[in-house]
Amino acid sequence: MNETLQERPIITLTTDFGLGDDYVGTVKGVILSYCRNAVIVDLTHEIAAQNIADAAMNIAHSYRFFPPGTVHVVVVDPGVGSNRKILALRACGHLFIAPDNGVLETFFEEDRFEEAFIIKNENLFAESVSRTFHGRDIMAPVAARLACGLDITRVGPRIAKSHCYRIRLPKASLARNTITGEIIHADHFGNLRTSITKEDIASFSRHRPQIKVADHIIDGISTAYSDVTPGKIIALFDSHGHIEIAVNGGSAALTLACRTGDEVVVLSSKSQTE
Amino acid sequence: MNETLQERPIITLTTDFGLGDDYVGTVKGVILSYCRNAVIVDLTHEIAAQNIADAAMNIAHSYRFFPPGTVHVVVVDPGVGSNRKILALRACGHLFIAPDNGVLETFFEEDRFEEAFIIKNENLFAESVSRTFHGRDIMAPVAARLACGLDITRVGPRIAKSHCYRIRLPKASLARNTITGEIIHADHFGNLRTSITKEDIASFSRHRPQIKVADHIIDGISTAYSDVTPGKIIALFDSHGHIEIAVNGGSAALTLACRTGDEVVVLSSKSQTE
Amino acid sequence: MNETLQERPIITLTTDFGLGDDYVGTVKGVILSYCRNAVIVDLTHEIAAQNIADAAMNIAHSYRFFPPGTVHVVVVDPGVGSNRKILALRACGHLFIAPDNGVLETFFEEDRFEEAFIIKNENLFAESVSRTFHGRDIMAPVAARLACGLDITRVGPRIAKSHCYRIRLPKASLARNTITGEIIHADHFGNLRTSITKEDIASFSRHRPQIKVADHIIDGISTAYSDVTPGKIIALFDSHGHIEIAVNGGSAALTLACRTGDEVVVLSSKSQTE
Repeated sequence: MNETLQERPIITLTTDFGLGDDYVGTVKGVILSYCRNAVIVDLTHEIAAQNIADAAMNIAHSYRFFPPGTVHVVVVDPGVGSNRKILALRACGHLFIAPDNGVLETFFEEDRFEEAFIIKNENLFAESVSRTFHGRDIMAPVAARLACGLDITRVGPRIAKSHCYRIRLPKASLARNTITGEIIHADHFGNLRTSITKEDIASFSRHRPQIKVADHIIDGISTAYSDVTPGKIIALFDSHGHIEIAVNGGSAALTLACRTGDEVVVLSSKSQTE
Repeated sequence: MNETLQERPIITLTTDFGLGDDYVGTVKGVILSYCRNAVIVDLTHEIAAQNIADAAMNIAHSYRFFPPGTVHVVVVDPGVGSNRKILALRACGHLFIAPDNGVLETFFEEDRFEEAFIIKNENLFAESVSRTFHGRDIMAPVAARLACGLDITRVGPRIAKSHCYRIRLPKASLARNTITGEIIHADHFGNLRTSITKEDIASFSRHRPQIKVADHIIDGISTAYSDVTPGKIIALFDSHGHIEIAVNGGSAALTLACRTGDEVVVLSSKSQTE
Repeated sequence: MNETLQERPIITLTTDFGLGDDYVGTVKGVILSYCRNAVIVDLTHEIAAQNIADAAMNIAHSYRFFPPGTVHVVVVDPGVGSNRKILALRACGHLFIAPDNGVLETFFEEDRFEEAFIIKNENLFAESVSRTFHGRDIMAPVAARLACGLDITRVGPRIAKSHCYRIRLPKASLARNTITGEIIHADHFGNLRTSITKEDIASFSRHRPQIKVADHIIDGISTAYSDVTPGKIIALFDSHGHIEIAVNGGSAALTLACRTGDEVVVLSSKSQTE
């Protein structure tokens, strides 16, 4: 009994729909129509409208907090109604349903990618398919059927990774004494996530690095907000392993007047003394 | 086993509560107290405060994406605490719980309406009923009990359709060579839904119609956003079958500086040449 | 069968995370990883950033609409990563998981408090624990395990109520002929909740009291919004038993230009005639 309950399939949703319309609700209605058993979890519906890179980084960070086998539906779909493909992709033991527009970029990496299929089998779609809302009419029913046990090979032809649409995500560039990155996300608290990761820093310097952002120099990397007095600007590793600029008890976005895309530079102790 | 799980009752919520208070959460707590088994789905909680017509159009569009038998609770209730009635209404194979203020207007139509009851049986209410929050204290417990199998005739006396409160929803008016409607909703993307439907257009002209909105003329009706170059204004049928004004990759609401209530006119090819 | 389903554990979430990031979603992923069976309900994620008192009052009002045994996770945690403790607290037949920062203040009251434990057993945490997100890495997995039946004594050592961190919440102060309180919350509709309760008033006067707010005098306490004509300012008891200032069909927050912290005074009929 318990075992069966433990197998209730999980479907997550990441979209740019917002919550003010009925879009998210109707997607859930469709999912429940095809897989009454599903547990549906909202990741976020506030991806900036049609911002594929933002959605790609979001799902890259969040999927791994769910059990293997979770079905993740990512609908940021500026090409809806065009001839862009829709993918069912297996990676990292999870299943992803999304337009073939780069939103699954991070899952094409060698050690993550497993296999991908083009969703083409119209028998699996909703009875009537609009030209403006494939999230509801194609992705939701197919995701629901897959979550409820449909064999993935049934959705359509296999597609090689090399034939999928790829995008470039912001990455830090490493030089001998500096790492140059950018702000990739400002969260609800005004914490600024950068494109510079723990791994970027690891290979870099054993000495206390300096972080330069918006003409402000931060000395060293703290381990928690509470390491410093309230109001002070710090750098630390965020809960996803990226360097984050934060203000203890405040908003770094406001304090530094920074936003997504602004440059962040890490200087090694060597470059600091030069 | 699976069959029983597939029968978990679904309850949807449409309100003007917003998500910043505990109102939505406490309604869900009450529902789960009376029907632990329920799957609760948010349609939207961002109906404009006390905007009955907006809620009426919202639930009219969304209910049909859920399985028959779903219980839909619509709480836009400016008359709470007054002597306005509360209805349990069957239509289209679904069940609706809402104040008798017109919010269920579209379900009174001949081919949709089945039967309606006034919710009056205080034994089914919460133990203590406030004068300001019947969504939580009356509608939630009754909806939950109905979802869990309570016979609808138990909620109170039957009421004839003709005794229910009716409202006028925006409808297009059809003349020989023009259809006059209005913008009824601006969505999260700035797409503008009009009161003009596919059916309105169908009976109208075989020639390429023109759509006039805010001194802008749109030629013909496209089938997808991607039919035109980014930034261009188009008209197309939205996923509910209404004419929608959109900008490929942008916001029609911003581009045209339009809002709800603004006039939209469709001209037949005949009227164009006159 | 039904009985087992009726025992699906409920976990509520109250946070200051907002819905724009993946924070809420990943917390849910972790909960489902440790308790697949859980029903997760959002109370609100729009507590003002790091506002402990706001969260304390919110959970104090909402918990009781859920069935006994519900697990409530409250993550407003400005001290994350410091040496502040994390509590598992039993009160009123419910279970609360939160930082030891006062957010559970109302549950320390004599007739509510049952027992409390410090969450310390690292075997119950996520595999890797960040210094910036204990909601996800500690509170979520422990809440999930408790919801799924873990004995509370396993989380760590018992802690006496007197060793927990306490805060002062806004309370009305009662004099012979006046009660002085303040606005503690402005809701989505612009209704203003005050710190003055039904009990405060009960002991006060049998005569029609006057309520003074922002140089405006309200005569008497109404029972429903619809008692007055639209646009009129009234005082009434809100659905939690607090005096609320409202405008029928409008926003008291806008009409009175009031906000949280502003003074509200109730005058007895005696003081009015003096």
